[in-house]
Amino acid sequence: MHVSDFIWTPGISVADFVSALGKVGFQSIELKKAAELIVKMKKDGAKIFLTFTSNMVTSGLRGFFAQVIKLGLADVIVTTVGAIEEDIMKAEGEQFIIGDFESDDVALYEQGANRIGNLFITNEMYARFEDKMTPLLTELYKKQKRWTPSEVFREIGSKLNDEHSFLYQAAKNNVPVFCPAITDGSFGFHLFMFQQKHDDFIVDVVQDFKNILFSTSQDEKKAVISLGGSISKHHAILACLLNGGADYALYMTTARHTSGSMSGASTKEAKSWGKVKDDSDAVTVIGDVTINFPLAMIDAMEQLSKEGIINAR
Amino acid sequence: MHVSDFIWTPGISVADFVSALGKVGFQSIELKKAAELIVKMKKDGAKIFLTFTSNMVTSGLRGFFAQVIKLGLADVIVTTVGAIEEDIMKAEGEQFIIGDFESDDVALYEQGANRIGNLFITNEMYARFEDKMTPLLTELYKKQKRWTPSEVFREIGSKLNDEHSFLYQAAKNNVPVFCPAITDGSFGFHLFMFQQKHDDFIVDVVQDFKNILFSTSQDEKKAVISLGGSISKHHAILACLLNGGADYALYMTTARHTSGSMSGASTKEAKSWGKVKDDSDAVTVIGDVTINFPLAMIDAMEQLSKEGIINAR
Amino acid sequence: MHVSDFIWTPGISVADFVSALGKVGFQSIELKKAAELIVKMKKDGAKIFLTFTSNMVTSGLRGFFAQVIKLGLADVIVTTVGAIEEDIMKAEGEQFIIGDFESDDVALYEQGANRIGNLFITNEMYARFEDKMTPLLTELYKKQKRWTPSEVFREIGSKLNDEHSFLYQAAKNNVPVFCPAITDGSFGFHLFMFQQKHDDFIVDVVQDFKNILFSTSQDEKKAVISLGGSISKHHAILACLLNGGADYALYMTTARHTSGSMSGASTKEAKSWGKVKDDSDAVTVIGDVTINFPLAMIDAMEQLSKEGIINAR
Amino acid sequence: MHVSDFIWTPGISVADFVSALGKVGFQSIELKKAAELIVKMKKDGAKIFLTFTSNMVTSGLRGFFAQVIKLGLADVIVTTVGAIEEDIMKAEGEQFIIGDFESDDVALYEQGANRIGNLFITNEMYARFEDKMTPLLTELYKKQKRWTPSEVFREIGSKLNDEHSFLYQAAKNNVPVFCPAITDGSFGFHLFMFQQKHDDFIVDVVQDFKNILFSTSQDEKKAVISLGGSISKHHAILACLLNGGADYALYMTTARHTSGSMSGASTKEAKSWGKVKDDSDAVTVIGDVTINFPLAMIDAMEQLSKEGIINAR
Repeated sequence: MHVSDFIWTPGISVADFVSALGKVGFQSIELKKAAELIVKMKKDGAKIFLTFTSNMVTSGLRGFFAQVIKLGLADVIVTTVGAIEEDIMKAEGEQFIIGDFESDDVALYEQGANRIGNLFITNEMYARFEDKMTPLLTELYKKQKRWTPSEVFREIGSKLNDEHSFLYQAAKNNVPVFCPAITDGSFGFHLFMFQQKHDDFIVDVVQDFKNILFSTSQDEKKAVISLGGSISKHHAILACLLNGGADYALYMTTARHTSGSMSGASTKEAKSWGKVKDDSDAVTVIGDVTINFPLAMIDAMEQLSKEGIINAR
Repeated sequence: MHVSDFIWTPGISVADFVSALGKVGFQSIELKKAAELIVKMKKDGAKIFLTFTSNMVTSGLRGFFAQVIKLGLADVIVTTVGAIEEDIMKAEGEQFIIGDFESDDVALYEQGANRIGNLFITNEMYARFEDKMTPLLTELYKKQKRWTPSEVFREIGSKLNDEHSFLYQAAKNNVPVFCPAITDGSFGFHLFMFQQKHDDFIVDVVQDFKNILFSTSQDEKKAVISLGGSISKHHAILACLLNGGADYALYMTTARHTSGSMSGASTKEAKSWGKVKDDSDAVTVIGDVTINFPLAMIDAMEQLSKEGIINAR
Repeated sequence: MHVSDFIWTPGISVADFVSALGKVGFQSIELKKAAELIVKMKKDGAKIFLTFTSNMVTSGLRGFFAQVIKLGLADVIVTTVGAIEEDIMKAEGEQFIIGDFESDDVALYEQGANRIGNLFITNEMYARFEDKMTPLLTELYKKQKRWTPSEVFREIGSKLNDEHSFLYQAAKNNVPVFCPAITDGSFGFHLFMFQQKHDDFIVDVVQDFKNILFSTSQDEKKAVISLGGSISKHHAILACLLNGGADYALYMTTARHTSGSMSGASTKEAKSWGKVKDDSDAVTVIGDVTINFPLAMIDAMEQLSKEGIINAR
Repeated sequence: MHVSDFIWTPGISVADFVSALGKVGFQSIELKKAAELIVKMKKDGAKIFLTFTSNMVTSGLRGFFAQVIKLGLADVIVTTVGAIEEDIMKAEGEQFIIGDFESDDVALYEQGANRIGNLFITNEMYARFEDKMTPLLTELYKKQKRWTPSEVFREIGSKLNDEHSFLYQAAKNNVPVFCPAITDGSFGFHLFMFQQKHDDFIVDVVQDFKNILFSTSQDEKKAVISLGGSISKHHAILACLLNGGADYALYMTTARHTSGSMSGASTKEAKSWGKVKDDSDAVTVIGDVTINFPLAMIDAMEQLSKEGIINAR
C-alpha cells in the first residue's frame, strides 16, 4: 500500500476523511487501523471490554460512550470512580464549564472552581452530588447489606433518567460496569460516612473480581478497547488474560512505553504476557483520545451501520 | 460555554464533527479554536506563514499543503530540505510505501528500504532523484551563478507538472518557499558535487534571509501556522519577530515545553519574545499533525468556502 | 539567580552534582527544587505521603523505598497492588531480569517471560508467588474474617524477612500502606479463589478509606511525594484534600497535562482543587522516575543527614 | 543480568550512582548503557560527532560541552546558530537568568525578558551582542570575501577568552563546528545587514557540506552523540551515512518516534537508513538532556580518566 496525497473535497464526511487518513502516514494510519479493528471485533462477535479514565467522562465523550453501549459496541465497561460520579452529576443536569489550560489556579480555587485540564467543575456541583448520596446509599442498604461495586452502579444507572448517561445505558443494556477502586473519590468519602453509621454495610470488591472474570470465558472471543491508562486499562486486560488473552486489542493513549508504566504499555508488550494473544489483531494509537476515539469509532459505526450490523436508527 | 455530550449522527461531516469537538474537552477544544483562528487570520487579511517538517511531506499531507497554497491559505512556506526532495520525488511519480513502526530495521536496510516512522522510501527512489539533480543544477548554473534557496525552489516548482506538488503550487501562486538549511539532505550532497566542478556556483543563504524579512512588513498583519518544530518553526517566527511580531499564531506539535526546546515552545512562551504579539490570538494543539492539521484546516476551509472567501471550485 | 556552567570534577558526588544542576536549566533546575522541597517538608515536620506505581517496585527503586521509609522520610504509602505482589516476590528471593524494550514479545511469551518495559518477570516467579498465597490467606482468615487492605499488608510485611522490602520496613516503622484497588492483580485472583470457599471472608475497602483519612488531620502539615500517576497519586492527594490540602507537593511523572489526565496533572492544577494549598511549595519534575527520584532524594538525604535530622548510621 | 535494589550510601559519587542505575530499570538502564557506549567509542578511537540544540547552550551544559571538547571526547560539533550566539554572549560575560516555566509572558515581554523554558535572556544582552557583530564581520571581510560557517566559528572561537566557551575550546583543539542553518537567528540578521553594504560578502554553506563530509571518512570508525533533535542531529548522521554509517550512536531526546519526526527517530530507525551500521552499538535515552547527558558522560569520564585515556588533570 502506498502513501496517497490527501485532498479536501467540500462537505467531506468523517468516514471519507478517516479512510483517506489510512494512506497519509504516522498516527493517521494507525487511526484507520483502529477503525478497521473495531469493525473486525464486532463482526467476529467478540465480547468487547471498553475502558476509560474519569477525565473522558468529564469531557463530552460521556454521551458518546452511552451511544457506543446502546449500539452494542461495548459489553463490559471498566473505569475509575470519578467517571461514575461525573456521569451522575451530568445526569442530574450539571453543566461542566469550558475553561483554559493556562488558568490562574489560585483564583479558580477562590471562586470554587476545580480544574481538570481545560474544564472546570464547581464546588456547588459536588455539593449537590453529595446531597444525593445519603438517600441513595440508604435505599441500597434497605435492599441488602453487602454490595459489589458493579451492583451499585447498575442500581444507580437504572434510576438515572438520561439516555446520554453511560450508567443508564449500561444498566438498560445489561452491560456491567466495573471500577476496581470504588473508594478513590468523593464516592469513597460517602461510603465511609455511611459505613460509620451502618457497620454491616459492606462493599465487596473481591466478589466483583469474580464478576469481571465470569463476564467472559476462555471460549469466547474477547476484545479490549482501552482509552487512556490507569487501572481501568489494567483491569480489563487482566480479566482477559485470566480467560486466555484478548483476541483484539486497541489502545489509545498519550503515555509512552519508555517508562515501563501500564498507561504507556503497548499492545506489543501485552503479547509477552499473553494479555493479548500472539496472533491477535492489536493497534496502538498515540494521541488525545477526545479526538482519536470518536474519529475511529465513527468510521467503524458507519461501516457497521451500512452493513446492518448495528442499528443507528 | 459548557461541555456538551458528543453524539454520532450517521454520515456526519468533518465540519460538524470539529464543531462538536469544540465542546468536548482537552485537545479537542484546542482543535476547534485552531479552526476558528485560521478563519480569523484569513478574514483579517493576514499574511500567513505555513511551516512544516519534512516528515509531513513524506506523508500524504503533501498534496493537502499544495491545496492550501492553491486556495490562498498560505503566503510564505518555510520547511526543511527533505520536504523539497520528497516533493520532487513524488512529482516524478515515486510512491512511498506504507509500512510499520515495528519493522525489522536491519532487514529493511538489506532490502534497500529506509524507514520514516511507519513509511518507507527505497534507495531506488533516491537514486532516480539523484539522476535528476545534475541536469537541473546545470540548467540553473547557465542562468546565473549565484542563487538563493528560494529562487532555486521556485525554478524547480515551475518545472514540476503535478498540481499536488507544493513546490508547483507555490511557484504558480507566487508563494516563496524558504529553507534555512538547504544543504541538510541529499540536496546538499548534489550541490557540493556540482560546486566541486563549478567553484563560482554560490548558494546565497544570507540573501534569502533578506527575502524572508522582506516577504512581510511591520504594517502587515502576520500569522504563523507552525506544524512540528525545528528550524522551519523558528525561522518563520523570527521573520515575524523582526517585523513586529505575529498577530496570529497556531502551533501544532507533539513536543512538550518542559525541555526548553524550540519544537516544544508554546505560543505562550513566544509572547515573552514578542514573536507573537501579547494581544494576539494564539493556539497550541498537542498531537499528531497528520490528524489534527487536516481536521482544523478542513473546518476552516468549509467556513471560508461558504462565505465565498476561498473558492473551492 | 543565574545559569552557571557545569564543570565535572573527578570523583564528584551526587550531592554536588545535584547542587550544580540547580543552576543548569530546564528540568535540572526543577530537580534541585525537588531536593530542597523534600528537605523543607521534613524539617517542617510534615506527614509525608509517598506514592508510587507498581513498575517502580519492578525496578530497583524498591529497596530505596524501603530505605526511605526506614529513615523516616515517608509516613504513609499509597501504591497499586502489583507493587505489593512484586515486593513479596523479591523478598522471597525472586530476581527480576534485565531485558530490552525492543524484545520479540511473541518469543518472550513462548519462553514464559512477561515484559515490563525493559524488565522481565517469568511465569515461574508468579507460580511460586501463588503457592504462598493460599496459606497466607488461611492464616489471615483464622485471625479475623474482615480485613482492610492496609491491615493485610501490615500482616504480610511483618512476616517478610528482608530489610530491602518496603512492606517489611513499613510494618516495622508503623507506616500504613494503602492500595485502593487491591483486586487489580494476581492478588485479586487469589482473594477471589479464597472467598469462593469462605464466603464470610471480607476485604473492607471502605474501612480503609477511613484509615487513610485518619492517618492525617486538618491540623497537621501534610506533604505528598507522588511518583508516576494513577490512583496511587490521586488517592494520596484526595486524602490530603479532605484534610485541608497538602502544604508541600512534589510530582514526578512522564505524563503531560495536556490530555487532562490525573497522571499528567501538575501541582499547579492541584491548587484549583485545594488538593495543594495555594500558598504551598509545589514542584513538578518531568522525566523518568528511576533517575530523577533517587537524584533528588539522595541530595535531600545528604543534607538531612549532615544536619542530624535523619540518621544514615 | 538482574534488577538490583538501589541503596543510598552517604557521600555516594555520581560514578557509583550511575553504575547502580544500570541495574535499576527503564531509562536508568539505558543511561548506564549510554555511559558504557561513550567509553567504548573513545577506546575504539572513533571520530565522535557531538550534536546539541541551542537551548542546551542557554543552559549550563555549555561549559560542560567546552570541557568535553577539551578532554578529547568530541571531534566534530554540529549545532544550531542560537548556540553560537549564546556561547558568545556568555563569553562576553552575560549572565542568563533562572526563571520559571509558569511565568507571565506578557509581563516578561514588557520587562524585556525573553523566556526559554525556565530561563530568561534580556533584550540588553541581545543588544550588546549585536554591537559586537558589525566590527567582527568587518574584520572577517577584510581577510576574505567568501567564508564557510565553520571558518567563521573558528575565527570567533579563537578570539573568545573563556575556557568555558565551546567555540573557544573547539578552535583551540581543532574541532570544527558546523551549523547548517547559520541565518536562523540574530546572527542571520547581522549577516544580512552586512551583506547589504558588501554584496560580495558570501557565506558558502555548500562548501561547508564538503567540510563536514571530509571531516571523516569511510575507513574511520565514527560515533554520533546526539542531544535533542533538529537539524543538528540530522546533519551529523547524514555526514556519517555518506561515509558508510556510524559505528556507535547515542541519542538523548524527549521526542518520541510515533510522529515520524527526525527529533524522535530512534537509533533503531537509523539502522534502516544505514545511518547507523546494523551491527553498531546504539543506545537511545529518553528524558531531559540537562540531567541525563552529564550523568552518562561523567560516568564515562571517570572510567576513561582512571584508565588514563583522558587526562582530567
